Amino acid sequence: MEPAVVTIVRRADHVPEQGATCPNPVGTAGGILFEQEGKYFYVLPGVPYEMKEMIDGSIIPYLATKVKDSVIRHLTLRTSGIPESMLANQLGNLDEILHGAKLAFLPSPTGVRMRISVHGDDAASVERLLSEVEQRIRVRVQKYIYGTNLRIGRDHSNILTAKKLTIAVSESCTGGLVADRITDVSGSSNYFQQGLVTYSNPSKVDVLGVPSLLLEQHGAVSREVAEAMASSIRRVARTDIGLSTTGIAGPTGATSTKPIGLVWIGYSDAEATFATRFQFGGDRRRVKERAAQAALELLRRKLLKIE
Amino acid sequence: MEPAVVTIVRRADHVPEQGATCPNPVGTAGGILFEQEGKYFYVLPGVPYEMKEMIDGSIIPYLATKVKDSVIRHLTLRTSGIPESMLANQLGNLDEILHGAKLAFLPSPTGVRMRISVHGDDAASVERLLSEVEQRIRVRVQKYIYGTNLRIGRDHSNILTAKKLTIAVSESCTGGLVADRITDVSGSSNYFQQGLVTYSNPSKVDVLGVPSLLLEQHGAVSREVAEAMASSIRRVARTDIGLSTTGIAGPTGATSTKPIGLVWIGYSDAEATFATRFQFGGDRRRVKERAAQAALELLRRKLLKIE
Repeated sequence: MEPAVVTIVRRADHVPEQGATCPNPVGTAGGILFEQEGKYFYVLPGVPYEMKEMIDGSIIPYLATKVKDSVIRHLTLRTSGIPESMLANQLGNLDEILHGAKLAFLPSPTGVRMRISVHGDDAASVERLLSEVEQRIRVRVQKYIYGTNLRIGRDHSNILTAKKLTIAVSESCTGGLVADRITDVSGSSNYFQQGLVTYSNPSKVDVLGVPSLLLEQHGAVSREVAEAMASSIRRVARTDIGLSTTGIAGPTGATSTKPIGLVWIGYSDAEATFATRFQFGGDRRRVKERAAQAALELLRRKLLKIE
Repeated sequence: MEPAVVTIVRRADHVPEQGATCPNPVGTAGGILFEQEGKYFYVLPGVPYEMKEMIDGSIIPYLATKVKDSVIRHLTLRTSGIPESMLANQLGNLDEILHGAKLAFLPSPTGVRMRISVHGDDAASVERLLSEVEQRIRVRVQKYIYGTNLRIGRDHSNILTAKKLTIAVSESCTGGLVADRITDVSGSSNYFQQGLVTYSNPSKVDVLGVPSLLLEQHGAVSREVAEAMASSIRRVARTDIGLSTTGIAGPTGATSTKPIGLVWIGYSDAEATFATRFQFGGDRRRVKERAAQAALELLRRKLLKIE
């Protein structure tokens, strides 16, 4: 049995006979694939964003064509505001939830991730079980889940484009991060009409038309203001969907009833307007990132009609 | 000569006699400082954002009090769109620029950084030379410089607060990232009034009041539209300063005269309105990040009256 020979070359035009090239759409250094006795060897450039692009664009699609009779799928649900032991308690009997899937609790100082893994022979049935397990978990602990490991921008892009829906966002505590995430996807100008960072109370009233009485009665960080921001931006930007965030990113701004990390996410479309409350931990940047993730996750669930 | 003994402990309440504690404002694990024969040993928690906070908040200020008779300062200028050799040519005779300072060219696939280092006995004269060298370099190659290594958010915060100035931003190609950067700083609500992500042409006309004739004549990515966006957001948000971005982040949207990475940054205050052209390399995310950095750098230069 010959050992696999991996030759490191820097450019696609020096690729030896035995290696297939792996295209690099964002740089000049090509990658190479070697295959021997069912083992795959990749040589990729060291620039991280080039390497990532090649893994997503070439390697994973290629490997997916090779692995035909064994399918593994993972889905990670990110939670905040509940320790591992209480999360397990709330889920109850795991056999009733998993039906053969596996569930890992991955605690960290910033929250507990739950990773669902499903293994099987056929992609359709694996995807179906994964989705069913996700639903059964969400029914029990939905309020602690603020995000998944899905490529949140691209997933949204596909659904919004397919459904021909437009969206606008009005952000307070996330300060532009939700719009930034949405516009990271090429083609987002097809559905993303407008973002508004209404950081001060006057801008919420003047630009967005949120009634000042609401701000006085409930404060800027409240269900009522989150809902008004979502419905107002939808009206102002004339879009199908409006999304909003308002919260206390810290380290200042907390009150006795409104702690740092409290965030309301608002959603509005032609059928319904509502807001959901989250309590995040972490520093200012982490609260912003989690709130943006939660807003995009809420949007994804509405688009896919996941309750 | 006894070797320094470093005992690793996990919590501040277990700190041994010989170690001084280092407070952790964002977590529970304390750090410890040991000092022996003029050498300093720190033990810090492994959570990156806790470690960073402690370095910035405790360690660097502490070491600054210990190092009295020797000062080193660095400033890095980030350039884009010019190779190292041409940059050196344009600078010309380095002795005339440096006057004893050191300059390192640090090329990477994404641009060349120039790191200025000044070493001396007295902080004031070191800072003065650093600033003079920066000025002499900027006079020669200003158009390639899009950013520095300064903590861009906090620097702005200090100046805007001290001068009691308010700001609003109108973003197209950066898609919310400029507002996101500004609002990463606690207290930014004191000067940051409003951000607007006018991603579509109709939103530029409807919300911002950019004349549609300008968009037709010059296109959305133009000096004229960048200037109109900056002056309009200043008027709409009633702030002292308006900042704008419009460009082609890619990978689509390029034309024969407007390549991917072309970005105009607009600035407007009571005295002047202007826009500056940049040509960035890299993928969509990199173009967004560099454009945001360039916008904040342009703002910093105006605030500090650096030409």
